Order: sequence, then structure tokens, then C-alpha cells
Amino acid sequence: MSLKLYFSPGACSFVPHVLLQSAGEAFEPIMVKLHKGEQNGEEYKAINPRGQVPVLVDNGQVITQIVAIILYLDQKFPEAKFLPTEPVARAKALEVLAWMNNTVHPTFTHIFMPHKFSDQAEVQGALKTFNTQIYKGLLAELEELVVKRVSPSGWLSGERLGPLDAYALTLTRWGSIAGINPADYPSLWAHVSRVAQDVHVTQVIERERLQLNLYKAA
Amino acid sequence: MSLKLYFSPGACSFVPHVLLQSAGEAFEPIMVKLHKGEQNGEEYKAINPRGQVPVLVDNGQVITQIVAIILYLDQKFPEAKFLPTEPVARAKALEVLAWMNNTVHPTFTHIFMPHKFSDQAEVQGALKTFNTQIYKGLLAELEELVVKRVSPSGWLSGERLGPLDAYALTLTRWGSIAGINPADYPSLWAHVSRVAQDVHVTQVIERERLQLNLYKAA
Repeated sequence: MSLKLYFSPGACSFVPHVLLQSAGEAFEPIMVKLHKGEQNGEEYKAINPRGQVPVLVDNGQVITQIVAIILYLDQKFPEAKFLPTEPVARAKALEVLAWMNNTVHPTFTHIFMPHKFSDQAEVQGALKTFNTQIYKGLLAELEELVVKRVSPSGWLSGERLGPLDAYALTLTRWGSIAGINPADYPSLWAHVSRVAQDVHVTQVIERERLQLNLYKAA
Repeated sequence: MSLKLYFSPGACSFVPHVLLQSAGEAFEPIMVKLHKGEQNGEEYKAINPRGQVPVLVDNGQVITQIVAIILYLDQKFPEAKFLPTEPVARAKALEVLAWMNNTVHPTFTHIFMPHKFSDQAEVQGALKTFNTQIYKGLLAELEELVVKRVSPSGWLSGERLGPLDAYALTLTRWGSIAGINPADYPSLWAHVSRVAQDVHVTQVIERERLQLNLYKAA
């Protein structure tokens, strides 16, 4: 089998995991246990020196970075229509994808892994608090995007469930880990719940053993 | 004229600015003065509610996010060969572009605009110091990429000067603003200096009135 995806349960590797599951071609999902530090082991660093997931390996070619992997899969499986092909519609979808990847995702990193930005405990605590507020605003923006984009197309990504929909699920789930109640964003939460019911998404959720909503009321 | 680019001198809008200058089609460069807060004015927020540059407007269609703009321009001007077309080579280039955009760029934001991550002065100071060290490591990674990628192709982006080369110039210049001497990264600095001599890059540097190296020895 020549198509492999290195993933970690609940990480943003969920997005290409869903795309591969939908594409219909056999692939080998390989779990990297972040809580055991496997991403920093020699074996994994030989594949991705940055020690991050996701990594796609297609016929021995290693591709890292979620945006690059999504665009590669879009080119490899054109019939899956992961992204729109019409130039402006495509640009608008990529605009959302880029924003999720360079703004929403790194904001969560400040909450979940503040040690990446400071080695001082009190600075890390301040980063968590401040960026949780920022994250709430970003989820509100995502809610607006769902309201604006989903009604005509049915999905955030375009005419089919695609990378933006899977990423929206991941980012909303991360919010619930950060103590943000997804129910505070009713359109987003309704959309994410619908995404989770898709047959391929359900299969990935089961393989990654994910709980969609980890929010606990204080 | 139907093609417009909103840019700010020295910002990452430099990258699409270079691509448009190279593409040969007439476009209108519109300067947004960040130091006067124009990006937060009503007029600009009507174009991009996030108040960021770059923004590309093509026949009235507004496209934000540097990654989406680059991919749109690559599709609009295929003969310019801004990015490789062969799938694996393309993915490897997009991998670098995504990393520049989601890792190197936001690390500089911690140094240049720490108020985006904390409202406390002492936390902001700690972020600047810590992330300047991180940024040095990222420039070292960029130096390695130059050594690895530039020799076969001549350019970071592929067979022509493209977005990765312009972004490398921007990120190295930002390093010099953060007190990092570009000469500490000799292969990167040699490459950036060569990029700066390209006729279209020179035109953009003149229009934006940029000084390439702002490093001052202590």
C-alpha cells in the first residue's frame, strides 16, 4: 500500500484523514501518540524533522503541512471535489482554509501548548487566559462564515463536504477543550454536528476515538 | 483598471506585489498606511473587515489571505510559473509557503505586535525576547531550505523567482528589524540579495521604499 497518513487523534491531521477516508482509495492510517512523545522520537523525526502531524507519504514522497496536503489530495482526487475549481470560489475557500491554519489554529496553540511561546509559567498562564478570549472571537467569526457560506452550497468547502468542514469540526472541538461551550455558537455547532454524521467522518471519528464535545460546565 | 492590490510597505503584501509586477498585466497598487491606522478605518474595513493586507481585488472580487492570493495569481497567470505544476514539486513548494505563513510569519508577529497576544506589558516583553530566539532558529531552517532547494532549481519557488523567494526576502528583512543580523545566515542572505536584484523585485522595493537590511549592531 503506497498511501500513508500519519495522524494523531484529535489533531488537525483529522482534516486530511477525513479527505482520504472520503476519496475511496486504500490508505494506511498510522497513529502517532503525541502523549507518549512519539513525534519527537528518532523514527518519526526521520520522516518529519519538525515532529508534527499530519504527514502524507505517497509512493515514498513525504508531504507535510496541512495546507499542502489538502491541495495535493485535491489535485490527486479531482473527482472528489474537495475544493471548488472555479477560480474565485476556489480563492474564497482557500482564504478560509488559510485563515483557519494561520490564525485560528495558532491561537489554540497558545492555550494548549503555551510553552511554545514562553518558558515562564506566569507568562504561559497569561497567554492561556488572553488567547481563550481571542479564540471565542474567532469561533464567532467561524459561526458567521457558516451562516454566510453554508446556506447556498450546503457545505463550508463548496458543493461537497470538504477540508473546511472537517477543520471547522476540529476547531470547534478544540474550543470545547479550552472550556468554550460549542452551544454558544448555534449555527456553527449545528453544522459541525451535521458534519460528524457524514459516513466517512463517522468512520474517522471512530478510528481516532474522538468525543466531539469535551466542554464541561464549571 | 480592474486588478488592484492593497499593500503596506514591508508587510507580507510584498509577496503578491512582486508576483503582480512580474506577471506583466497592468494593476493598481494601493498603499495602506499601517502607521496611520488606515487598515482600521471604515473605508478599508469595508474591503477587508479583518483590517489586514494584502487584499487583491480582481474585477470587483475581493480576495484576502496571502496563500489564497498567491494560488489565485498562479492560476490566473499560468505562463508566469509562480509555482511548479508537477504534483510532488508543487506540494513541496506549498509546504514551504504554508510554513512561512503559519509559523515564521506569526513568530515575527509576537516580536513586532506582542499586544495581539497579551494586554500586559511584562508578558509582551517576555514574548518579544523568547520569540526572537525562536525566530533565529526559523531563519536557520530557512537557510537550510535555501541550501537544499536553491541549487537544483535556481530559486526557492521552482524554476522561476516566485512567492517563496519574495517571502524569504520579507522574513529575512523582518529579522533585521528584530535585531537579527542577516549576515549570520550567509546562504539565505546571499539568496535574498540575489532576489533583490531581480528587475521586478527592484521595482517593488523602490515603490515600497524599502531598505533591505535594517540591522544595527549593538
